[in-house]
Amino acid sequence: MEIARIVEEKTKIPAYPRSVLNVLAAISIADDIFWAARYSREALNLVIEIVKELEKRGFIEYDHGIRLTDKGKRFLEEVGYELNFKMCDRCRGRTVVFSEILSEDVIKEFMKIQRNRPEAIQQYDQGYVTPETTLARVAYMHYRGDLKGRDIIILGDDDLVSIAVGLTGLARRIAVIDIDERLTRFITKTADEYGLKIEVYTEDLRNPLPENLYKKFDTFQTDPLESIKGLRVFIGRGIATLKGERCSGYFYLTLMDASIDKWRELQKLLLTEFNVVITEIIPDFSEYINWGYMEKMHAWQILPEQLRKIPRDGWYVSTLFRIETLRGSRGLVERIPPEEDIYYDEELASA
Amino acid sequence: MEIARIVEEKTKIPAYPRSVLNVLAAISIADDIFWAARYSREALNLVIEIVKELEKRGFIEYDHGIRLTDKGKRFLEEVGYELNFKMCDRCRGRTVVFSEILSEDVIKEFMKIQRNRPEAIQQYDQGYVTPETTLARVAYMHYRGDLKGRDIIILGDDDLVSIAVGLTGLARRIAVIDIDERLTRFITKTADEYGLKIEVYTEDLRNPLPENLYKKFDTFQTDPLESIKGLRVFIGRGIATLKGERCSGYFYLTLMDASIDKWRELQKLLLTEFNVVITEIIPDFSEYINWGYMEKMHAWQILPEQLRKIPRDGWYVSTLFRIETLRGSRGLVERIPPEEDIYYDEELASA
Repeated sequence: MEIARIVEEKTKIPAYPRSVLNVLAAISIADDIFWAARYSREALNLVIEIVKELEKRGFIEYDHGIRLTDKGKRFLEEVGYELNFKMCDRCRGRTVVFSEILSEDVIKEFMKIQRNRPEAIQQYDQGYVTPETTLARVAYMHYRGDLKGRDIIILGDDDLVSIAVGLTGLARRIAVIDIDERLTRFITKTADEYGLKIEVYTEDLRNPLPENLYKKFDTFQTDPLESIKGLRVFIGRGIATLKGERCSGYFYLTLMDASIDKWRELQKLLLTEFNVVITEIIPDFSEYINWGYMEKMHAWQILPEQLRKIPRDGWYVSTLFRIETLRGSRGLVERIPPEEDIYYDEELASA
Repeated sequence: MEIARIVEEKTKIPAYPRSVLNVLAAISIADDIFWAARYSREALNLVIEIVKELEKRGFIEYDHGIRLTDKGKRFLEEVGYELNFKMCDRCRGRTVVFSEILSEDVIKEFMKIQRNRPEAIQQYDQGYVTPETTLARVAYMHYRGDLKGRDIIILGDDDLVSIAVGLTGLARRIAVIDIDERLTRFITKTADEYGLKIEVYTEDLRNPLPENLYKKFDTFQTDPLESIKGLRVFIGRGIATLKGERCSGYFYLTLMDASIDKWRELQKLLLTEFNVVITEIIPDFSEYINWGYMEKMHAWQILPEQLRKIPRDGWYVSTLFRIETLRGSRGLVERIPPEEDIYYDEELASA
């Protein structure tokens, strides 16, 4: 289709005829453009530009949200394309149920603590997950033997995974690195209050890690920046903290801010530069809460005015990746020069 | 640990201290060695050799099955290692519930048809999944837009995916290739009886595909041989059947017959030679039914006599992989010389 070519030129994000089909099929089951983006599994900026082109051509209309016109419906029927978006509502598509793995006390305490967390700020591209997601991340680690008796490090922790891990009392060592003092202060204060042993480091991951964090952990967790440079730094530093073979790392990647082509680029990095194996890719494991600076995002600026309405939480999701180190795996140890902008992402900035 | 070194020498399968921990932790939650293998996520032949070494050293004993001795329990406690094996019991860890996506009629008909299927035979390394698994595979395709209006091919189909796809009436074209005439006859007969349009080819995948199957499909499914050569042939031929960009492929890989190191080797093949992206890796999606020739397997021969008891179904599981083609992806088109033994697998044959 012509649309794919036009939107790719605008956004610099690879666009395919199927991207357009995905957006059309998603609109037929979603109420607004943000939820349509989730269902389509296409990058948000791409979805926005595709929607504009579809509207121009009369396939969809803006009417208290977004919907297919008769022309749009007929087209989709003729092609016969359909997404049947119905995940398991017990585990929410996560494969495990956190309340079956974690104790009631842990869940209750964590729900209470997280109410007073620092708000997400744009400076560090923050945006945190629902408390249920944080608990599910910890439950999944336990399920996989990555929690009990293990030394665990979290690189960037606005999701407060360290606190949830601490509350279980199962890990042997817990460390957190974050660049944001508001967060490291909050984690330190909470740890003191609840008697959790959490080491807290306020550091920029572009710099080499503190000496005592190299090759010391069994498991890392990170919800990385999604530029390729950001991914390389967060995941590469994570791998560098691991003791050696058969240690594990968890990270989360969206299809909102990263195209499927970028996923391939990252997977090549994992398999070649880092030489690790991917053991799990579980779609939409993490659900995020709307962040306060939504209206300042690039995506908001390019959104047709009629569609500028804050959606309900849960449209922004990310996929769980678990990796393991094997013989020959290696992490990232060298310094990243400060002039290298790990926040800049061509896919997010264009259009 | 010394055990890892010893069993690796015997089996030629990479073995790590964590492999031994996984087996110990799995034994503490399993009744027999086959279920312990499932929970440990280590290769079956490796598990068997590890069990022998653990028994020699008094960590476990054979007593109507297999269990930790006090020494074994104490050791595991000291290390503090634990697997908490509890998946969602609604979707069985599959992320989707097939009965919510497929109609009752499809489910009922399929359950009836599969009762008369040909038995699995060793000659082609067969072994089929539970009918619920076949239905879940089809439901997952629908969930992901890979079923309705799509042209679908199944490479090797003792799991009868083609019939389940046919019963939904949603696919545009269905083709099956299998080497086993008993199967292709059964599928043809069933298709005739139920008025399903399924093209059936009795072919050896080592040969290039029939001309009319190249670049013609949107989706492929295959449950491949797990030697690296077998994986390359099944998946590479699958990719060669796809029309072009943003088509999808599903295959299933165990940790029973393939080590985690082999997973890495395969992933490198996917990312480099085939240049596709991996979109999902969902553990233990497929559950298999015990096959009639279990007692003729190599694993059975090396099993301590006290443990030679056919386990209940469901211990043998495989992980769902979904891949997508993007720009620059390519499949396998050349002929594989008949003297190349795609069935032979060093990991399975040794010890």
